[in-house]
Amino acid sequence: MANLQDEMKRVKGRIDQVILDQLLPKSSPIREVDLLYRMMRDYPARPAKGMRPFLCVTACKAAGGTEDSALLTAACIELFQNWILIHDDIEDGSELRRGSPALHLSYGAPLALNAGDALHARTWEALLGNMPELGARRTLSVMKEFSRMVNETTEGQHMELGWVVHGRWDLTEKDYFEMCTRKTSWYTVASPCRMGAIIAGADAGVLRELMEFGTNLGVAFQIQDDSLNLVGDEKKYGKAKSDDILEGKRTLILLRLLATATQSERDRVVAIMNKTRAKKTAADVAYVLNLVDKYDAIGYARKKAAELLKDSLVSLRGIRWKGDKDSAALLTAFSKFAVERKW
Amino acid sequence: MANLQDEMKRVKGRIDQVILDQLLPKSSPIREVDLLYRMMRDYPARPAKGMRPFLCVTACKAAGGTEDSALLTAACIELFQNWILIHDDIEDGSELRRGSPALHLSYGAPLALNAGDALHARTWEALLGNMPELGARRTLSVMKEFSRMVNETTEGQHMELGWVVHGRWDLTEKDYFEMCTRKTSWYTVASPCRMGAIIAGADAGVLRELMEFGTNLGVAFQIQDDSLNLVGDEKKYGKAKSDDILEGKRTLILLRLLATATQSERDRVVAIMNKTRAKKTAADVAYVLNLVDKYDAIGYARKKAAELLKDSLVSLRGIRWKGDKDSAALLTAFSKFAVERKW
Repeated sequence: MANLQDEMKRVKGRIDQVILDQLLPKSSPIREVDLLYRMMRDYPARPAKGMRPFLCVTACKAAGGTEDSALLTAACIELFQNWILIHDDIEDGSELRRGSPALHLSYGAPLALNAGDALHARTWEALLGNMPELGARRTLSVMKEFSRMVNETTEGQHMELGWVVHGRWDLTEKDYFEMCTRKTSWYTVASPCRMGAIIAGADAGVLRELMEFGTNLGVAFQIQDDSLNLVGDEKKYGKAKSDDILEGKRTLILLRLLATATQSERDRVVAIMNKTRAKKTAADVAYVLNLVDKYDAIGYARKKAAELLKDSLVSLRGIRWKGDKDSAALLTAFSKFAVERKW
Repeated sequence: MANLQDEMKRVKGRIDQVILDQLLPKSSPIREVDLLYRMMRDYPARPAKGMRPFLCVTACKAAGGTEDSALLTAACIELFQNWILIHDDIEDGSELRRGSPALHLSYGAPLALNAGDALHARTWEALLGNMPELGARRTLSVMKEFSRMVNETTEGQHMELGWVVHGRWDLTEKDYFEMCTRKTSWYTVASPCRMGAIIAGADAGVLRELMEFGTNLGVAFQIQDDSLNLVGDEKKYGKAKSDDILEGKRTLILLRLLATATQSERDRVVAIMNKTRAKKTAADVAYVLNLVDKYDAIGYARKKAAELLKDSLVSLRGIRWKGDKDSAALLTAFSKFAVERKW
């Protein structure tokens, strides 16, 4: 089997080429439009793992399709990730993305918001390009799955933002899993794999298993992401450390902490989390991090992630792949990487 | 010929039904998701003229197609208008939309931005629903035109925002026309008509004429919109009066004023326009409005609009319509309404 990291890197190289050389406009004689194009190319040109296009391409090959037939769709999934990150960074007030300032900090929120919209529209336009290779029926099936993916993501995003905006703390682990499945699982794992499988002509049974696989692994992936946000290496991770505390995110780690802390600790954590980003002090963040440590909330969350990984691997093993064994093995290797990664 | 206003109202009624009863989700058992759905339905449920879906349906009939075959596409054009308005209001910091507070003022910018994205994705999903009625080829042609429309709009929007953000005043009427064609013409006139014609199976010659017609009439429409913003009846118009001055918009009216005013007047107008919205006083707005009046900048702009209307009608007359004469006549009536309307 090819090495997972090498393979992800190789696919990412091909995807970058499609996005930057074929899908996105390069320059315009009109000065302002030229700036828009540069803004649209900014996030796609920053370093990224390219997990989602990798999953799309690899699932396609595992299901008996070719890499080339999935390449455009995989590039569109990566494009989607880019516009949603631009908007996500505005919504969350994030400062760092992939190791550089968030787009709205460099150009202002209005232009960044519009650049995200421009990328969004280009994504759908690009999907139309599947026609010659996939024919009308599969092109439209891929778009159907794509719209499901965006719908789920915006609903999950709304849930997470809404909890912060409305100061909600009456949340259970079930709420977190529901939010996370929508916000993360569909676009990170389930839909990339399912689109790859659709392109390869997989049957409804395979698509069902991939939904199970993807929703479970996606949540596990997000839990690991939440952990890295608190204890990861900022340089590798590419986002500002403890941003989730500054942004008031209701992570599984935080919900666990609140469920196990004393009443007075709990009250203080909630009071800190309810402050606006600008009002949160370094001491506030340190207080929360200290309690996270005291109650081993990350250990607890990681145990949950391990369980979700186990469930997802059961679904994966249940699939009778029609394509190459190496690709199927890479999906298993990726699953483990998703919850064990340090970046 | 049917009365234009009655006909626009009738089509708008059908479109509302498609959007609110068929395309948009109604409720969710999950509290936060339910709020998202209500936010998505907010702008579509507000009173609006429904000009764009009217143009799509009417052009389709003029070109020999049926109203029913264009209804879904027309509804998607109206949906597009709704999400772009949500984002536009955030970008411009607008306060009033269709007579009520802008969405981001009621729910905060992060949730409103995300609701716009959710609507955007639903638009593309809905377009896939053209398949059974139009078949794969025309469904994809409509989507191709739709993506052109969104691309043009985001580029025009960037140009206009960029001029404000970068404090640019080295602008000519040609710059205004270029910006305006992109920002307004494509999505207001050209693409709605062209999509209607595509659905009816019109040939490339008709589509070319409709591009000419639409780009000219769209700019004329925008000039009238800019005029109404300064001297219109706020209740009818549905947006806050003189918003364009508060938002620093480079309208043809303002460019004309700057080209004809004395140096000292010009300097003071630029200084006022460069202030942030919050810093602009009522006296500032009155000063600009007074000069607009003194130099009859609105009269000048309206003369330009009349010329553009004339050009657009030449294109319209050049089309050999294959469908009903009444619909073709309604397009002519609409063209005059676009530049003479008071709302």
